Amino acid sequence: MTRYANRINRLQPSPIREILRVIDHPGMISFAGGLPDSASFPDISPVANRRDQTWSANTMQYGPTEGEQALREVIAEDFSKRAMPVSADQVLILSGSQQGIDLVSKLMIDEGTLIAVESPTYLAALQVFNLFGARFISYQSGSVAEDINSHGGNEAPAMIYSIPTFQNPTGHCYSLTERQQLAHACDDANTVLFEDDPYRALAYETCERQPVVSMLKSAPWVYQSSFSKELAPGLRLGYLICSPELYPQLVWLKQAADLHSNRLSQQLVLSMLTSAESENRLHQLQSHYRLKRDNFSSALERHFGDIATWSTPAGGLFFWLQLNRQPAIDTRNILPRAIDRKVAFMPGEPFYADGRNAANTLRLNFSHARTDEAEAGLKLLSQLIREVC
Amino acid sequence: MTRYANRINRLQPSPIREILRVIDHPGMISFAGGLPDSASFPDISPVANRRDQTWSANTMQYGPTEGEQALREVIAEDFSKRAMPVSADQVLILSGSQQGIDLVSKLMIDEGTLIAVESPTYLAALQVFNLFGARFISYQSGSVAEDINSHGGNEAPAMIYSIPTFQNPTGHCYSLTERQQLAHACDDANTVLFEDDPYRALAYETCERQPVVSMLKSAPWVYQSSFSKELAPGLRLGYLICSPELYPQLVWLKQAADLHSNRLSQQLVLSMLTSAESENRLHQLQSHYRLKRDNFSSALERHFGDIATWSTPAGGLFFWLQLNRQPAIDTRNILPRAIDRKVAFMPGEPFYADGRNAANTLRLNFSHARTDEAEAGLKLLSQLIREVC
Repeated sequence: MTRYANRINRLQPSPIREILRVIDHPGMISFAGGLPDSASFPDISPVANRRDQTWSANTMQYGPTEGEQALREVIAEDFSKRAMPVSADQVLILSGSQQGIDLVSKLMIDEGTLIAVESPTYLAALQVFNLFGARFISYQSGSVAEDINSHGGNEAPAMIYSIPTFQNPTGHCYSLTERQQLAHACDDANTVLFEDDPYRALAYETCERQPVVSMLKSAPWVYQSSFSKELAPGLRLGYLICSPELYPQLVWLKQAADLHSNRLSQQLVLSMLTSAESENRLHQLQSHYRLKRDNFSSALERHFGDIATWSTPAGGLFFWLQLNRQPAIDTRNILPRAIDRKVAFMPGEPFYADGRNAANTLRLNFSHARTDEAEAGLKLLSQLIREVC
Repeated sequence: MTRYANRINRLQPSPIREILRVIDHPGMISFAGGLPDSASFPDISPVANRRDQTWSANTMQYGPTEGEQALREVIAEDFSKRAMPVSADQVLILSGSQQGIDLVSKLMIDEGTLIAVESPTYLAALQVFNLFGARFISYQSGSVAEDINSHGGNEAPAMIYSIPTFQNPTGHCYSLTERQQLAHACDDANTVLFEDDPYRALAYETCERQPVVSMLKSAPWVYQSSFSKELAPGLRLGYLICSPELYPQLVWLKQAADLHSNRLSQQLVLSMLTSAESENRLHQLQSHYRLKRDNFSSALERHFGDIATWSTPAGGLFFWLQLNRQPAIDTRNILPRAIDRKVAFMPGEPFYADGRNAANTLRLNFSHARTDEAEAGLKLLSQLIREVC
């Protein structure tokens, strides 16, 4: 018998990955992943074909662990405008923001380390925290300090993980007050705030999007975002910005993980961010997804109006449904039958650190399926749920 | 005080990374990193501009954790020809082979896990194993079983890490007998063999390059290689192949680390590997580096002939020097003065798990500097060493 490391006992296949396997099947309508609409991807050929810029020998050589200096400066400038002044020396380019979760886990989590997570929260973050041996306490956006005090007892969590803007899976966008409460809770406990912000560009209504890390007085922090939603996931590029005290360690951990991120992608993203089209493109993307959201919302009204409740998200990629079935159903049990009928969704259970309150919940992505597919898929799913209950 | 994870106490900045910071300085002649010659990088523009193939919406979307199926098949076929039959279902695409070291460490290493490493060996592998808390026993290529028995006592290592072909840092290429001995040692102890093989394509003489994993009878194994040396490091792409029992865990760990690797790079590498030019390009690359090695060797004879010994490597990127200074010198102490004189090298110490036998050793890369730079740099370095002793 091979003697694996202990953490392997905690390794679980991701429900997302398992579902991604089947959504390629012909005819499958998928509300399961957080896949952007392929039709929305930028055409990178004009950028890619500018040989002088993107295909230099320099781009092909090993590069700095921190990332391309020019890209880090653009990111620092953007963040400084919308949040608070930071320098490029606080910016670390990531091979997608999933990597930030791995690096921050390595930085913070031993077996038994207590961390606080929203309930529900991003399932792949839970997976990684769990892999490194975290213990969890759960909190709600409106009552962070109370929840942490009451669930943690005398023990303050080493880190609070949060997705304040168009949260995954709920779509919730924290109010200014909720943001301030979260910042205060971190300062009070001197707990690292790990703010995950991949969806901020996908805003369809005016709402508060100020990064919570900019409201901290003293607590250490890591803020991360991604180019997967705004540009394209296949580029596998994201970034983190952190308080200076954490930066050297995170750079070392990044170096140990993959030396540095893909230089082609960095050049392409830099070109796209600094292009004159950039702002216009983002507005088009927002309009495109706003319309998809509204069409999805109408279809939901038609097919789920009497069996579920939800809040229409002001941004992001997801609707979070609470079924009104009694007795409450474990939506994981519906999934195989849904897939048999060629419609995939994400059951609520994997988004909960403790599995409680997960019954009757499911997450539906509205960005990937076409509007006619959404209509058909929601009808099928609604019928199935009615049959089951 | 922020409560970091315990592993952060074991975090050390890489000497390579620290040296990479200064080698960009104007006029610096660097023998330090393992940087390929930028002049040797393929021109990927013709490939990149084939829009239909490389820039499809599919390439921009999230992709499979395992990697692109077509690329995995090409890799499996190549390995099956030169080693033993494997299926694409044993191939996992990596974001560079450094990532393989991270994933295998996560799979195998707890705090206190005993692993066996060559003495000396690749320093960034030592760093990662150390980060995860490994204890080390060292072995020599000719006496694996004896060294492991005598140093490990009654305790068999959980894993043996090896670079049998054009080893980093020594350049040594294991003979068939040495390969068989290593395979037997793994089978006898039922120890995982982790074979790291990034340099195999860079062969300048005929020598045994049969992967050791193909000589195993029963031990579990991971074989990895990279496209950084053969094509270009900026693409950040490598792969691992492993025994089927280890594959699901490594895929899950990959998914937790960065979801999947860059799809542009995967398409570009696939195009280059399957191009009609591929074989010819490799022969040109070998000729190019063979000449650089021979010129470097001549310059070494001129400047180090009376103060050091070395073996001319049959492949790879490095000369490993043993100075004959007595008392032996810690070459780390020479490095700052060498850098002042605009020549960088890699001291031997970081390549040793136990630091023993490191005095009087240094590693010199011959692929990066131009031949005139190599001449000038080796002259400077030789003078400095003579002055110091």
